[in-house]
Amino acid sequence: MTIIEQLQHKIDFKTKPLSALGTLEKLALQIGTVQNSLSPVLSKPTIVVFAGDHGIAKEGVSAYPQEVSFQMVMNFLQGGAAINVFSKQHNIALKVVDAGVNFDFEPNENLINSKIAQGTNSFLHQKAMTETQLQQCFAKGNEIVNQISENGCNIIGFGEMGIGNTSSATMLMSYLCKLPIEQCVGRGTGLDDKQFENKISILKQTQVFHGNIENPKEVLQTFGGFEIAQMCGAILAAFENNMLILVDGFIASNAFLVAYKINSAIINNAIFCHLSDEFGHQNLLNYLSVEPILKLNMRLGEGTGCAVAYPIIESAVSFINNMASFKSAGVSNKD
Amino acid sequence: MTIIEQLQHKIDFKTKPLSALGTLEKLALQIGTVQNSLSPVLSKPTIVVFAGDHGIAKEGVSAYPQEVSFQMVMNFLQGGAAINVFSKQHNIALKVVDAGVNFDFEPNENLINSKIAQGTNSFLHQKAMTETQLQQCFAKGNEIVNQISENGCNIIGFGEMGIGNTSSATMLMSYLCKLPIEQCVGRGTGLDDKQFENKISILKQTQVFHGNIENPKEVLQTFGGFEIAQMCGAILAAFENNMLILVDGFIASNAFLVAYKINSAIINNAIFCHLSDEFGHQNLLNYLSVEPILKLNMRLGEGTGCAVAYPIIESAVSFINNMASFKSAGVSNKD
Repeated sequence: MTIIEQLQHKIDFKTKPLSALGTLEKLALQIGTVQNSLSPVLSKPTIVVFAGDHGIAKEGVSAYPQEVSFQMVMNFLQGGAAINVFSKQHNIALKVVDAGVNFDFEPNENLINSKIAQGTNSFLHQKAMTETQLQQCFAKGNEIVNQISENGCNIIGFGEMGIGNTSSATMLMSYLCKLPIEQCVGRGTGLDDKQFENKISILKQTQVFHGNIENPKEVLQTFGGFEIAQMCGAILAAFENNMLILVDGFIASNAFLVAYKINSAIINNAIFCHLSDEFGHQNLLNYLSVEPILKLNMRLGEGTGCAVAYPIIESAVSFINNMASFKSAGVSNKD
Repeated sequence: MTIIEQLQHKIDFKTKPLSALGTLEKLALQIGTVQNSLSPVLSKPTIVVFAGDHGIAKEGVSAYPQEVSFQMVMNFLQGGAAINVFSKQHNIALKVVDAGVNFDFEPNENLINSKIAQGTNSFLHQKAMTETQLQQCFAKGNEIVNQISENGCNIIGFGEMGIGNTSSATMLMSYLCKLPIEQCVGRGTGLDDKQFENKISILKQTQVFHGNIENPKEVLQTFGGFEIAQMCGAILAAFENNMLILVDGFIASNAFLVAYKINSAIINNAIFCHLSDEFGHQNLLNYLSVEPILKLNMRLGEGTGCAVAYPIIESAVSFINNMASFKSAGVSNKD
């Protein structure tokens, strides 16, 4: 029997009706397959939050001012943000990365300095970053994840912070899924109708300016933020280390999308944690043909969807390891 | 300001876009309102699993033989069932109640003896229980919950085990929601097409036999199991003690439905934990105009939906208590 068949057999003879644990059974099967084990283990779960600033934010595409990016990084370091609360709740290690925030942070042992520059260029009139900067992002994302893997983590989630980054993610999705901007764009942190119209108009202008681009790395160089590009490198590295990859909401899913276009096998290790309330996310999950664990109308980013979904993933591992079988419990099975 | 307004204000000034935590915000608002507190607390979470046997099981309405009821109770006591695994994962106290299983258990400190009889009558040709037995069920459910409340628990979930009990629950739903059996009935633990047709046919015969019944207690007496009736009494008692009430899947929701018909205010304290894969549950949740936390295609009963959803409820309480506000974190709010 293959490992998949053995796992399915183990799941089917637990004391429950066939397939009665639904999504938990699918997760147990996936995790056991990735780990090639009938007794999978989640080890040192970690969430890495990448923060970066975006030149496009100057065009009024966000409801919040750009300084919120660095202020929120300070909030992460002080433990006051949502991702701090949920990571602590589930004993998930939290790492914060300055991928390119427009602020000079004091050295801080909890902040990984991975700064490429003080924010990207506005992609309204030029590429968001140079090819060299993109390569630096991949190298840094890779390095961060390799370090975490060496320390024994086998399940890693990625979050982000960056005012303006739903615009960046929208363009990645539109180019890589070949979908019109209207099917990818949402209100981000909460644009009103007029601001939303402006966002769409700006993004359409960028599309006209940059024209057709096919290569996923060039799409990322053109529209990506430093935090998105580092996350993309980090996701590819997580797969190389055979880690389980927790995918958060709209922005993280678009970083995943770029990585998927580079290496589609990564989807075997990916767990889609939640459906974001940001319009566009459902279309992206449809494009990837994946089903998220949670649908809680959240749209906060930071990796919060990964953290809130984590105990469900733990439940999947718990039941396959700890439930009795019909035989061991002396329970009659269906005829 | 009312407590609701104060809670909403506290939620809105946390460091996140307005309403970006979706369902978690609704839960925090509900829990704070029930507890009349801006800093709600979940104390000694408990799940009570009521087990009982059903005369109707003799009519071939289930895929499993009746002895599975007592075998699963033994499995609960030995810690091998799904509900044991998930309760342990989240530090939820688990109580098992023999409400009327067709088996003589040895005395066991982990089993609450609340037995009414060795199973109900088949409601194909008579009422499932006498009026006296129904009153006993309410009294016992009440007593069990009062004891748990006295020990400091303020959040309680209810699960069940009883071969045949989806048939019982289907009839409660059909009578109390005034919906045809076809909109209430499902395949339970996994009936094939022929068995499912037989189940529908049997249930339709019982409807013809018993005719019109309006009084919710009489509906419960006619079709209910001892485990469902004790759960109904327990839910009413949980509300009297101002506890948060975790509602599980199809059977537990029908126990809730009867209690709701007796006292509709209980819905304020109720948290609907998951949408069961058992057909009929979605229609019942629609009838009650409620939205469940999880949709994981589970259909196991035992209170497993409550246990798996519990950490999400904890996340709601965590964020309202522990996240920084814009002011405390020095983060700029939206203009």
